[in-house]
Formats: sequence, structure tokens, C-alpha cells
Amino acid sequence: MHYPNGKKNNGMKQVSAANRSMKFSNRGMTLEKDINTTNTFYWDTNKAVIHKKPTPVQVVNVHYPKRSAAVITEGYFKQPSTTDYNGIYRGRHIDFEAKETRNKTRFPLANIHYHQISHMKSITAHGGICFLIIRFSAHNETYYLPAESFFPYWDEQFNEGKKSIRYEAIKEKGYKIPFHFQARVNYLTIIDQLYF
Amino acid sequence: MHYPNGKKNNGMKQVSAANRSMKFSNRGMTLEKDINTTNTFYWDTNKAVIHKKPTPVQVVNVHYPKRSAAVITEGYFKQPSTTDYNGIYRGRHIDFEAKETRNKTRFPLANIHYHQISHMKSITAHGGICFLIIRFSAHNETYYLPAESFFPYWDEQFNEGKKSIRYEAIKEKGYKIPFHFQARVNYLTIIDQLYF
Repeated sequence: MHYPNGKKNNGMKQVSAANRSMKFSNRGMTLEKDINTTNTFYWDTNKAVIHKKPTPVQVVNVHYPKRSAAVITEGYFKQPSTTDYNGIYRGRHIDFEAKETRNKTRFPLANIHYHQISHMKSITAHGGICFLIIRFSAHNETYYLPAESFFPYWDEQFNEGKKSIRYEAIKEKGYKIPFHFQARVNYLTIIDQLYF
Repeated sequence: MHYPNGKKNNGMKQVSAANRSMKFSNRGMTLEKDINTTNTFYWDTNKAVIHKKPTPVQVVNVHYPKRSAAVITEGYFKQPSTTDYNGIYRGRHIDFEAKETRNKTRFPLANIHYHQISHMKSITAHGGICFLIIRFSAHNETYYLPAESFFPYWDEQFNEGKKSIRYEAIKEKGYKIPFHFQARVNYLTIIDQLYF
């Protein structure tokens, strides 16, 4: 990305104290782009086959103009019932969700849905490799958090009303994902360490 | 489904000779519904976690009305680059495409895209269980065709210009999927036979 002043924007300047929560508009897209680039690199080098699932859209109205493609004229975004990414690596089923936050000290649990957790628990129970990729953009750090380490925090929020996970806890329970020029979020290296 | 005359429509009456090819409008939906019912049953009974991927939509314009959900006012259907279904069963990665034809004697290769085949070849190479579910609605028969058995036919169409597979060949190379009241396309029984 290019910025007008030639410097990299660390993404913190526009964030007010009241606004230090998940930003999905631009921030989310940066991590998503990095993961897509990584997955393309994994595909090109025949390391793994991992894709982002399309965003689910409920199509209500479609217009069929003559001689051209059908146009969706009314549609709505639906809440995803699974994670965003899945595929296969070294014969194992891979399944993960990716989230980015500008918050310096906590990862908010908002925007992860109940259905996604049920899905992740099932994937884990059936022998899949399931995890979250969490980026703290303020620290420019991206973590691999195994689903098994994440579930207790998720369950705790209902018992104890804690609606976020401390940055320090993710640092402790998670694994920092190394940056690689072509695999910008090189998460397979963590899977290699943990499973192979 | 209920029909006005109380009888099950076998789907053949409206098909003219010139029209005996793939029908994706209603026909495709019937198989899709049966597979979705099956997958829900597998999920409910904790047998497997298999989902249909959302249809990819390229969103061009979104309207954000006050106090209500965002409306997509211009969008286009994109060609899928992967198969429609994937997930996990007994620890193995599952990946398949489902197609229905009214044709009595041949399964046309149209509507399966080059990118989908590349994807299926990669999934197979990485150790996934990859296959097609093919329904001949005229015969009321649904087949499981392993991807490895399908690839030669796909490759042949470029060499020899054969743009379809004979019904008899699918009967021979494929496995008839049994009907089950709740798992209407009970394909896991075939996977059990072939892989476990």
C-alpha cells in the first residue's frame, strides 16, 4: 500500500479511546489480503490447497438483461455459519478463522459467532486442525491460536462476562506467525511445529 | 415436495429432445436440497462436518439504509474456482462436486469448469477424498464417481472431443449411492467401503 506521505501508517492515529475495538472495514481487509496472498503462494508452490469461502449472500432479486450477465439487484449479507478458511495440508483437514484488531491490550470476542464456535468444536472433534489467526495491528504481530486454547476463553465469557482475551494471554497460549515475503502470514510453519 | 396431482413428477415430461441436457434451474436444486438434508443429518448425528460453500458473488454496489441491514443493489454471480462441498469425515478431508442431468444416456461435461478440475486434482494429490455425485434424474439414480475415475474422461474431451460420459461408464466406474430416509444421498457409506 502507498500512503500520501510515503510512510507506513501504523493504523493507530485515527483510533480514539472509545473506538479501540475491532475494525472490520479496512483493517480486516489487510489481514484477509495477506492470507489470500499466502494461500495463493501455497497453491502455486503446491504446498497446500486452502481457500477463503465466499461471503454468504442471500439473493432476493435477480435481473436478467438480454445479451448480458444476470444482475443481482437485491441481496443481503448473511451471518457465516462456518469459519472463513479451509482446505488440506499434508493430508490433514485445515480450518480457521482470521480476525484483526487495533486494540493494543485485548482481543474482543465480538464478531465471532456462536455458530462458528460450534463448527470449530466439531472440526476439532473430528480430527481437523483448527485455529484462529489473530492480528494485533498496533503491535504489527500476528498469532496462531489453536482452537483448543481458544475455547476456554469463549466459554468463560458466558460464565464470567469477560468479552475479550488479554493480549498477554494470546502471546502466551498462541504462536507468533513469521512473516515471509511471499507467504505473508506463514501459518503452515506453525502447523509443521505442532503436528508434524 | 407436493405436486398438484398428488403424484411425484419424474421430471421427464417437459423435456424435449432438443433439450435433453443439463438443467440447473430446478433439477440442480433437487439434488442440492437432498445433499443439504444429508449433510444436516450427518451434522446432527455427529458423523461428519460437511458444508456447501456459498455461491460466490461479486458485490459492486451496496446501499446502507438507516436502521436496517445493508442491501446489495448490484452484484454478479462469479464462476466458482473450487468444488461446492467440503469438510471432514473420520479425520479425512472430503471434497466433492454435485451435478444432476435429465439426460438418460450421457452425463454432459459442460458446467464443470477447468478451475474446478485443477482444484480436484490438487485435493487428490494432497491426500483428500475427492469425488463427484452425479444424479441421472430420468433413472432416479445417484452415483458416487471417484475423482481419479473422472479425470481420464475430462482429459479425453480435449484429446478426442468427447464432451460427455456415457451412463453405462458411470454405472461401471461409479458406485450407486443408497437412499436413506434422513440421509437422502447417503454417500458416506460409499466412503466407508472405499477408504475404511
